[in-house]
Amino acid sequence: MRMYDIITKKRNGEILTNEEIKFFIDGYVKGDIPDYQVSALLMAIYFKGMTPEETANLTMCMARSGDIVDLSLIPGIKVDKHSTGGVGDKTTLIISPIVASLGVKVAKMSGRGLGHTGGTIDKLESIPGFKTDLDRETFFDIVKNVGVSVIGQTGNLVPADKKLYALRDVTATIESIPLIASSIMSKKIAAGSDCILLDVKAGSGAFMKTSDEAIKLAKAMVEIGENVGKKTIALITDMDRPLGTAIGNSLEVIEACDTLKGSGPRDLTEICIELASNMLCLAGKGTIDECKIAAKKVIDDGTAFKKLKEMVQFQGGDVSVIENSNNFKRAKAEHNVVAATSGYISSMDTEQCGIASVILGAGRENKESSIDFSAGIVLQKTIGDYVNAGDTIATLYAGDISKCISAQELLCKAIHISSKEPQSSPVVFARVTTDGTEKYYN
Amino acid sequence: MRMYDIITKKRNGEILTNEEIKFFIDGYVKGDIPDYQVSALLMAIYFKGMTPEETANLTMCMARSGDIVDLSLIPGIKVDKHSTGGVGDKTTLIISPIVASLGVKVAKMSGRGLGHTGGTIDKLESIPGFKTDLDRETFFDIVKNVGVSVIGQTGNLVPADKKLYALRDVTATIESIPLIASSIMSKKIAAGSDCILLDVKAGSGAFMKTSDEAIKLAKAMVEIGENVGKKTIALITDMDRPLGTAIGNSLEVIEACDTLKGSGPRDLTEICIELASNMLCLAGKGTIDECKIAAKKVIDDGTAFKKLKEMVQFQGGDVSVIENSNNFKRAKAEHNVVAATSGYISSMDTEQCGIASVILGAGRENKESSIDFSAGIVLQKTIGDYVNAGDTIATLYAGDISKCISAQELLCKAIHISSKEPQSSPVVFARVTTDGTEKYYN
Repeated sequence: MRMYDIITKKRNGEILTNEEIKFFIDGYVKGDIPDYQVSALLMAIYFKGMTPEETANLTMCMARSGDIVDLSLIPGIKVDKHSTGGVGDKTTLIISPIVASLGVKVAKMSGRGLGHTGGTIDKLESIPGFKTDLDRETFFDIVKNVGVSVIGQTGNLVPADKKLYALRDVTATIESIPLIASSIMSKKIAAGSDCILLDVKAGSGAFMKTSDEAIKLAKAMVEIGENVGKKTIALITDMDRPLGTAIGNSLEVIEACDTLKGSGPRDLTEICIELASNMLCLAGKGTIDECKIAAKKVIDDGTAFKKLKEMVQFQGGDVSVIENSNNFKRAKAEHNVVAATSGYISSMDTEQCGIASVILGAGRENKESSIDFSAGIVLQKTIGDYVNAGDTIATLYAGDISKCISAQELLCKAIHISSKEPQSSPVVFARVTTDGTEKYYN
Repeated sequence: MRMYDIITKKRNGEILTNEEIKFFIDGYVKGDIPDYQVSALLMAIYFKGMTPEETANLTMCMARSGDIVDLSLIPGIKVDKHSTGGVGDKTTLIISPIVASLGVKVAKMSGRGLGHTGGTIDKLESIPGFKTDLDRETFFDIVKNVGVSVIGQTGNLVPADKKLYALRDVTATIESIPLIASSIMSKKIAAGSDCILLDVKAGSGAFMKTSDEAIKLAKAMVEIGENVGKKTIALITDMDRPLGTAIGNSLEVIEACDTLKGSGPRDLTEICIELASNMLCLAGKGTIDECKIAAKKVIDDGTAFKKLKEMVQFQGGDVSVIENSNNFKRAKAEHNVVAATSGYISSMDTEQCGIASVILGAGRENKESSIDFSAGIVLQKTIGDYVNAGDTIATLYAGDISKCISAQELLCKAIHISSKEPQSSPVVFARVTTDGTEKYYN
């Protein structure tokens, strides 16, 4: 078998066999196949696509390129969740305790933030003492005893994806549905859960700018799940505005706690109920409606919040900040951003909001940057709200006031005020399952 | 400027500016841009193509990546010819003396053979003593005094093409019209002649299998010529059968001499008259018909043959082999291939004929292979001839009989005998100029 023939075949629009895909992935990981042949193949895949079967084969070859976590030692059904990345997305902190409260295990490996989107691991590490680098035994023990644990990636998971992603990133071959889908799903499969809930974001703050694009990606991933025997559902959710009101690590933990106590922002609460009920549904805990009622109940009776505290405690975190957000270290500088004109907040450039939070110190500009956990943005107004000129629309938090001034400039451009009241839009656009796509909008 | 953005632009089907093309070529030659980014761009060009202007810009950037030969010191109009490569193609040896006899200068750099097609330099080196590695001064002197000289590539001509071609060869990006056209034309432009005649082969022994594909390539090259101010004409010629009857180095020199003496095979003579008259026409020596008459005249009166002898003498070659082909060293083994059945020779797989000649020792399987100058094939019958079972259809020449046996097996499969008389086909299919395409067939 020759890589040259595999490139030619895909270039000509033919379907690669599993053996050919395995030859390519194994050879690339081993270093036998050079980058320049792989980038030519990736560009051919960009143009010619892959069938669902090819994509599933690619995913499994990638997943098998490193360790696959064996969660079978933990009794019960394990459900994983993946978000394609958004601004203000703290849903993992909320839904994991909810589903764990209802007997579904969450053994989750999360990532760090890079660029304009944050990462769950950074958010958790803003809790003093919280350990995200647990050894596998401790991780498994916490999942067994508490029902939920969230750690950073450990072990040699999907080295093929690391190598391929780095190459795609410099050869303009990121934007390919089969390549994105296999990258995400190979990591989820290697992480070992039985069921996978995908939160595919659509909008100005997301990689997929429209819900139709997001549905395409979701379908490809659900098809992979089906092909490789993992129950998979995808929700297409709104990222045309930051999720909730807080952007920044400890600010988001505070908002997550509020939401688990029943006093979170409407959009965040709604999306979390949707996500949690779909995870419960995947785990066979009933119909979506039954699971929604159950999810709301564990919020209302305090069980879910208690579960979060338990996880924080087991992972070495300071529970006092969860109990009382005033115990979090406060940012040195605070600054209110006011509306320049009167009108309705009509739209937000969500990516720019994310970049403003990075400027404040809440995110990383590159892999080497350090994070200021207390930095970030709290939006005081959201889309559809009417503001008068001079009203505070957001509060900025940073290590020094100069960062607030820089971020303010960006944020003012990102938040659009109009005389027209905008139409309200749903927070969940669609649900993609193996049975098809159910759209929640017209 | 970033290579990433250039790849993205081409991937999205946009037109690259001259600055972007220059950035890519210069950066690649310098080693600043890695192979893996270039191969991704090449694959994007494969799918999205290039406009005539982009292709011309690419060609000039490639040509300027190394030395450009300055032929202005040689008085008169210099015409170059390029063949896309064929089996038994010894036309350079015939047409160069013809046009030089008529006052048009030929300062030609030729290549060596690789794979199933031969190279002019190898053919000339089969003449004992013939030097193809002349220094530039000697080369220029011979062109000035004799009117024609053919040498191997010297100097640092088009390093961009060397690097790009090697990469295309392993990334399945050879078969792209703008990439093939710029590769050929950059070398012709760097070689410095005023006018360029292209012999684009079509058929089973050529890179372009159909005349329509060959016309597309020819148009792209003629457009480049027009864009960069070089008068360019392309002829599309038949490579569905070997050209003439001889395949192999000294065998082809002998056939070239016969043709210059007026006793060559009909197809070879006809194609040489066409090529030579177009070269003369490019140099302003009259209409095609006038130039044809002139070309025939210098064959008939012996001037052209005398010119070849002169060139051989000036380049140090043994003229006695030109005067009498019996003076060439003969192959150690000779073997006749006979027809297995009676019928018409209906078609030949020309590439397979070329491979058979390589097996005999006439060509190189890889760059390190050495050549047996006396080895090769002389076809005793050609397409359209009727043969009886047992008639000799070809004679094989090699260093030992075992090679003849191996080659015979291949050749028997390559030459098809049928009960039906095949239709005769023209040797020149079409002529492509800046005025358009004139087809010589229906």
